[in-house]
Amino acid sequence: MSNWKDNLRNITPYVPGEQSKDTDIIKLNANENPYPPSPAAVMAIEEFNAASLRLYPPADATPLKAALAEYYGVQLENVFLGNGSDDVLALAFQAFFNSDKPIVYPDITYSFYPVWCDLLKIPYKTYPLTEDFRVNLEDYRAENGGVVLPNPNAPTSIGEGEDFIRKLMEYNQDSVVIIDEAYVDFGGFSSVALTKEYENLLVTGTFSKSRSLAGLRIGFAIGSKALISVLEAVKNSYNSYTVDALSIAAGIASVKDDAYFKATTARVMTTRNRMAKELRSLGFTVADSCTNFLFATHSDYSMKTLFQYLKTKKVFIRYFNLPRIDNHIRITVGTDREADIFLAEVRQFLKEKKQ
Amino acid sequence: MSNWKDNLRNITPYVPGEQSKDTDIIKLNANENPYPPSPAAVMAIEEFNAASLRLYPPADATPLKAALAEYYGVQLENVFLGNGSDDVLALAFQAFFNSDKPIVYPDITYSFYPVWCDLLKIPYKTYPLTEDFRVNLEDYRAENGGVVLPNPNAPTSIGEGEDFIRKLMEYNQDSVVIIDEAYVDFGGFSSVALTKEYENLLVTGTFSKSRSLAGLRIGFAIGSKALISVLEAVKNSYNSYTVDALSIAAGIASVKDDAYFKATTARVMTTRNRMAKELRSLGFTVADSCTNFLFATHSDYSMKTLFQYLKTKKVFIRYFNLPRIDNHIRITVGTDREADIFLAEVRQFLKEKKQ
Repeated sequence: MSNWKDNLRNITPYVPGEQSKDTDIIKLNANENPYPPSPAAVMAIEEFNAASLRLYPPADATPLKAALAEYYGVQLENVFLGNGSDDVLALAFQAFFNSDKPIVYPDITYSFYPVWCDLLKIPYKTYPLTEDFRVNLEDYRAENGGVVLPNPNAPTSIGEGEDFIRKLMEYNQDSVVIIDEAYVDFGGFSSVALTKEYENLLVTGTFSKSRSLAGLRIGFAIGSKALISVLEAVKNSYNSYTVDALSIAAGIASVKDDAYFKATTARVMTTRNRMAKELRSLGFTVADSCTNFLFATHSDYSMKTLFQYLKTKKVFIRYFNLPRIDNHIRITVGTDREADIFLAEVRQFLKEKKQ
Repeated sequence: MSNWKDNLRNITPYVPGEQSKDTDIIKLNANENPYPPSPAAVMAIEEFNAASLRLYPPADATPLKAALAEYYGVQLENVFLGNGSDDVLALAFQAFFNSDKPIVYPDITYSFYPVWCDLLKIPYKTYPLTEDFRVNLEDYRAENGGVVLPNPNAPTSIGEGEDFIRKLMEYNQDSVVIIDEAYVDFGGFSSVALTKEYENLLVTGTFSKSRSLAGLRIGFAIGSKALISVLEAVKNSYNSYTVDALSIAAGIASVKDDAYFKATTARVMTTRNRMAKELRSLGFTVADSCTNFLFATHSDYSMKTLFQYLKTKKVFIRYFNLPRIDNHIRITVGTDREADIFLAEVRQFLKEKKQ
């Protein structure tokens, strides 16, 4: 009997959030931006010389790196690019988390962290968030093999400020600290400027949320030359050309159109604040969000039932059947019209369940 | 003193082939296709609804999978997609090569294989090609932890046929065998149909060569459901959305335009055969190529000197300073005009060096 199956990797796959093929749904379940990408990015694609696709993209996607370096006020050597921020984070885990000591992160956080640890055989340990879902900074004083923290955190939507990050860095001078800023552009504190002070601080970001380019897969990291050069070495030992030529062109155009970026992120924040206010007026507890989503619960109702109810009304939000947050929902901030439909359905639900 | 640097991954990066920013060079050094992508693929990009890029791409790039499944006469469950074939191969190494026994491949082959083995801590062993750069099939009878073989091989350009592959599979019933078919569309034998017979055979391919879409990063694999499902599990534990929405659209259009595909690959083969013939008439030894490049040497001249000479004439080819092939050059097949310029410069070189 052949036994080639003995050496297959035995792994439980990460299951991405539900995607519906239905086009008339209100899709508030994947933290996508309700607004299209910058018209400049759209034009960059339309005007792209597609004949040039026969060639490999520029090595290390340098033109897009240069645009980001200028935007963030850093040097080329401080910027890393990848195929979405999941690619960047997975490579960073490989590049920086090689200690025998466990890396540390909160119990409630981005669900990919334990998946990467399992895949890459990195030991890890989680610290519980406080009752009100804040990170307990003192936990992160203990020795560790590395720290990874989304700021703002997901799915809690709560962000921490400069003092918090500075203390975190003070407590962790012997580890690499990764701050995952996927949602920072919706009102969070960015640690990018701090990478100039702390050589062991890596900040990751994405074009998928605030820049409305989830369809193109662009992620990045900003950090010291010491960190970025190791990240580049690991990347170039894995897959040299991860960011394609069209993504580079559209990405540059997006970064350069700051007016549109500011206008659309502001619009999302305005809608978010209105949604939060209205949900609170209906008795929901809603975390103070500095992201493009809300994290909410209601003491009188089952959030799982609300999630399922909304689905029948073609309003898709996210429910996590996980310890501590199994009566919470996560709602992506949509357009004002989408917010109105969502809120109307929630009111209807509360009314029906009361009867 | 802080010691966070102790846990950085220490790795010697793979160095990709030279890229010149010069636009008036004759670029025959990266095995790129001299012809643009299918007009249908270009149109798919031009007509793409860029506003939809705010959304994540379809999970697992299913529409493109479906197009490839139809093209190759297999089922959806037999197709895997990645961010270029390097991504596919790196994931396949992780998915299938988990034995304590070394995986095996030829001493002269794609230079990324040892890099992935080092990165992923996979033991490996190489078997020397014969004097005339053929794979010695009998070497692959010995016990191993897996087999990876490009067919046609690179940079030798030489392909093996169905009998060879069938024997290879017969000898290796206890390992996964990966056949890397990056160059197969230029006259090689494809093992895709054999994946229906051999459950432990994975065939990988790319849109970067024969489909002129190197700029978009599309790679794929065809294999049994048993293999593909493990590959999907590993991929979904690493990065869920690797193929972007524009690549999916352009990729589908390319696959469906078979007439253009056949015409351009035929044209490359015609030019290749003419180049080989002319080089032979100048005294070069040229391997029988079933790829879009030629592997050549000349007993009277230094190929390194020829490589450097051509560079001064703005004709870029590839020279490998590696054991056994350090007097060989690899020349990508260009347009007929590019071939003529290359051949004229070679003739000039031979004349100058003779004097």
